[in-house]
Amino acid sequence: MEYEREPVKLEPKVAMGYLIHAEFGRVAFVVDDLPVIRPLNHVVVDGEIIVYTWHASAFAEAVRARPGLPVAYQSDEIEAHSHTGWSVLVAGTATDVSDHPRAAQMGKQVQSWIDRPHDMVIAIRPHEVTGLRLTIGR
Amino acid sequence: MEYEREPVKLEPKVAMGYLIHAEFGRVAFVVDDLPVIRPLNHVVVDGEIIVYTWHASAFAEAVRARPGLPVAYQSDEIEAHSHTGWSVLVAGTATDVSDHPRAAQMGKQVQSWIDRPHDMVIAIRPHEVTGLRLTIGR
Repeated sequence: MEYEREPVKLEPKVAMGYLIHAEFGRVAFVVDDLPVIRPLNHVVVDGEIIVYTWHASAFAEAVRARPGLPVAYQSDEIEAHSHTGWSVLVAGTATDVSDHPRAAQMGKQVQSWIDRPHDMVIAIRPHEVTGLRLTIGR
Repeated sequence: MEYEREPVKLEPKVAMGYLIHAEFGRVAFVVDDLPVIRPLNHVVVDGEIIVYTWHASAFAEAVRARPGLPVAYQSDEIEAHSHTGWSVLVAGTATDVSDHPRAAQMGKQVQSWIDRPHDMVIAIRPHEVTGLRLTIGR
């Protein structure tokens, strides 16, 4: 019997739901006309993707240089054996919200995996959210 | 006892070794000054990252519009519970190699998860490879 993976498009709200339950993703942005990609931990607060970084990181420098920096954010969970799971793509803009009254609280919610001084909270506002779920059909 | 995750920098050759054993990653590129990110399956052949896509995909269109398109490629394997694992970042250029004598053979090696007509083989030549392994220290 042959099984085929069927891609099912996700509604934006459903896709954001996957992001809420995910812990990390990758942000892509442009520096000097070149694409840059970085893995990051995140939390979703009030529909925005909140990441916590340190001021000397490439992403932090890019956002400081251009508030409202256009970004793409991607997250997925693919089961290694069956290759089923989901993938979500977000196009949006990133802004330094370190001065936001709730920044310290939001930053702490982001579970960072590396012990570095984290001192900059960035909010990514999604403009477009798309996603795909890979299920096994027949 | 408190355990801390220690990031260990990977030598480029070691980082490429992780990519060889990985099945997929994400490519970032620039279209109309905006960052785009797409998940992809890959194989590594002769030091190049080979992906198989279809001619109407955003990535294929960008590579056709600009042979030698600057790209960033990222792959990782992070264990959900311990948050240990590795992440590799590649900066390079992407070229359509569908006409290459070995393209059909290379393309078939890429294990695609979605049943779509795949008709374009793209080779990403790495210019810079960096990586991080997250291990548990104390």
